[in-house]
Amino acid sequence: MRIVLDAMGGDHAPQATVHGAVWAARDFGLEVQLVGQPDVIARELDRHDRRGLSLPIIPAEQVIRMDERPAAAARARANSSMAVGMQMLRRGETDAFVTVGHTGGGLAAALLYLGRIPGIKRPAVGTLYPTLGANRYCYVIDIGANADCRPEYLYQFALMGSIYVQRMMGIEQPRVGILTNGEEEGKGNRLVLDTLPLLKRGPFHFIGSVEGKDVPAGIADVVVTDGFSGNVFIKTSEGVARLLIDSIKEGMRRYPLARLGALLMKPALEAAARKLDYREFGGAALLGVDGVVVIGHGRSDAYAVRNAIRRAAQTVEYDVVGAIKRGLGTIQHEQRTVGHESNYQSEAIATT
Amino acid sequence: MRIVLDAMGGDHAPQATVHGAVWAARDFGLEVQLVGQPDVIARELDRHDRRGLSLPIIPAEQVIRMDERPAAAARARANSSMAVGMQMLRRGETDAFVTVGHTGGGLAAALLYLGRIPGIKRPAVGTLYPTLGANRYCYVIDIGANADCRPEYLYQFALMGSIYVQRMMGIEQPRVGILTNGEEEGKGNRLVLDTLPLLKRGPFHFIGSVEGKDVPAGIADVVVTDGFSGNVFIKTSEGVARLLIDSIKEGMRRYPLARLGALLMKPALEAAARKLDYREFGGAALLGVDGVVVIGHGRSDAYAVRNAIRRAAQTVEYDVVGAIKRGLGTIQHEQRTVGHESNYQSEAIATT
Repeated sequence: MRIVLDAMGGDHAPQATVHGAVWAARDFGLEVQLVGQPDVIARELDRHDRRGLSLPIIPAEQVIRMDERPAAAARARANSSMAVGMQMLRRGETDAFVTVGHTGGGLAAALLYLGRIPGIKRPAVGTLYPTLGANRYCYVIDIGANADCRPEYLYQFALMGSIYVQRMMGIEQPRVGILTNGEEEGKGNRLVLDTLPLLKRGPFHFIGSVEGKDVPAGIADVVVTDGFSGNVFIKTSEGVARLLIDSIKEGMRRYPLARLGALLMKPALEAAARKLDYREFGGAALLGVDGVVVIGHGRSDAYAVRNAIRRAAQTVEYDVVGAIKRGLGTIQHEQRTVGHESNYQSEAIATT
Repeated sequence: MRIVLDAMGGDHAPQATVHGAVWAARDFGLEVQLVGQPDVIARELDRHDRRGLSLPIIPAEQVIRMDERPAAAARARANSSMAVGMQMLRRGETDAFVTVGHTGGGLAAALLYLGRIPGIKRPAVGTLYPTLGANRYCYVIDIGANADCRPEYLYQFALMGSIYVQRMMGIEQPRVGILTNGEEEGKGNRLVLDTLPLLKRGPFHFIGSVEGKDVPAGIADVVVTDGFSGNVFIKTSEGVARLLIDSIKEGMRRYPLARLGALLMKPALEAAARKLDYREFGGAALLGVDGVVVIGHGRSDAYAVRNAIRRAAQTVEYDVVGAIKRGLGTIQHEQRTVGHESNYQSEAIATT
């Protein structure tokens, strides 16, 4: 299997990306194609032992900077590392594309060079979110690609999310919920209330409304939401975890005996911290585009890059894109009946 | 000062409500008027030492149940504890109303019996949210009253929130931010993008967009958001805190030495837990109605009820409602110029 990695993307590129690529190539026996500025990548590769590994360099001179309007940049820079990588995927020269760079840029480049799976209205970014219990996750989709959504989009996110969890986690009937502001009948904003009837008719196991507090508790295997609320959900989780950890540290400064306690508690605390460490999740999958695209956290270190590459390889192995295409096929009729164009005025993709 | 308490509301009424009332009356020298079924309240009061305390019982036979449509219930039951309490506030027979019962019911009864402050388009529920550092908070508004919002509402939430924090926390120029899905220019959903220009012209210190992770970090003193996203924000915080605490406990079961460590860390852990304990915050203020209304968590115990009563007394003492009225006065002109009726199709209050 071959995975192309945007070697130039992310806060710690090229050190973290190249190191993560070497690590993944060794641990998983993959070919990792490094796309970006050849001299920069070659210099970085020379710092690692690469005997027996396949790590070809694919030249791409331009880089999309974090401060650029991603869609415009993707169009303007056909020779950026993202654009070159996506084109390789399009041409079948690789099996999946991985970046820890600009999310909006990745989305724009994927739309431009891969396009949507026929029938999919909007691609979405989903991520595995840790829940209570060992190795338990909930797949949250969308976490940022579509700030404004229509009910039809959320319906398709539910379908794609359910298929993703089926294939990747081996859960036969994933419990699908919709994120809302209260479990009681009648709760929700206009979008949620209009989406509920569609979800009830969907070819997946819909369990109804879930609140923000229910997701970490593990009440659902898939949670659909618009990209705005989904982003609030993910970022808030990150912020609260940090607040709690910092508050414990603050308490330890005030109570010196607590420092000894922390030493004894270290394995337990580390297990809890690992639970919420984004580096373990292996990045977010961009679902709905015609190819396997994984977008990792911009702050990814080498270990997170390694895991994002593994996640991409698994997504190829379990044929998630093929399963989505087949899943759409079986509901073509249903889609036509529910896919009416309602009057949602805001449907712009965040990146255009 | 007199505070009327809905003695029948909340998961632990009447034990927690009556106990909390006695506690508050003693600690803060207030008269707490207990509204609800007289025999039930009297029986509960008899279990407490009330010497020297003023705790009159106000009869109200009906109760709004958690499963009722709140607006309908508020209209139908003029003799519910909520309705009777609100009418007392309206007639000047008390200084503030406190409930830990049904949020939607409280909102509906407040709208029906107190009405909005003239010029206010939508009342909103705000709460003090803990941030990093001792005694530091951010006021988040709206956390659930208005699932769908227009830009003009958010503008008024910012104004009311800024005044609330000025009066209650003594911060002269509160930093006001808007919750969004990315700090970069151009990020946001349609509502946020349309609200930004209004906030930039507002008579408060607007600092721009803040992400979910920035709020616990303490980047702003006031954060405005629609009631849907605000509810996702609050409930997610609750869920993540629980997940982390449960994960630490899980780790402790696996590592026996960690249990000894936990004992030594206890004061530090308790400080961190107290930080996120809703019982300390004293409930949420309903801003924009013509009177002081505080709505506490449905799961409130006696201590949380006591703190909600204290919060209500402070809100009276610092004349928050008067300050909002005066604050609206000074910006009448501005309001007319920004208060255009845009084409937001969803403006229904969640409870109607």
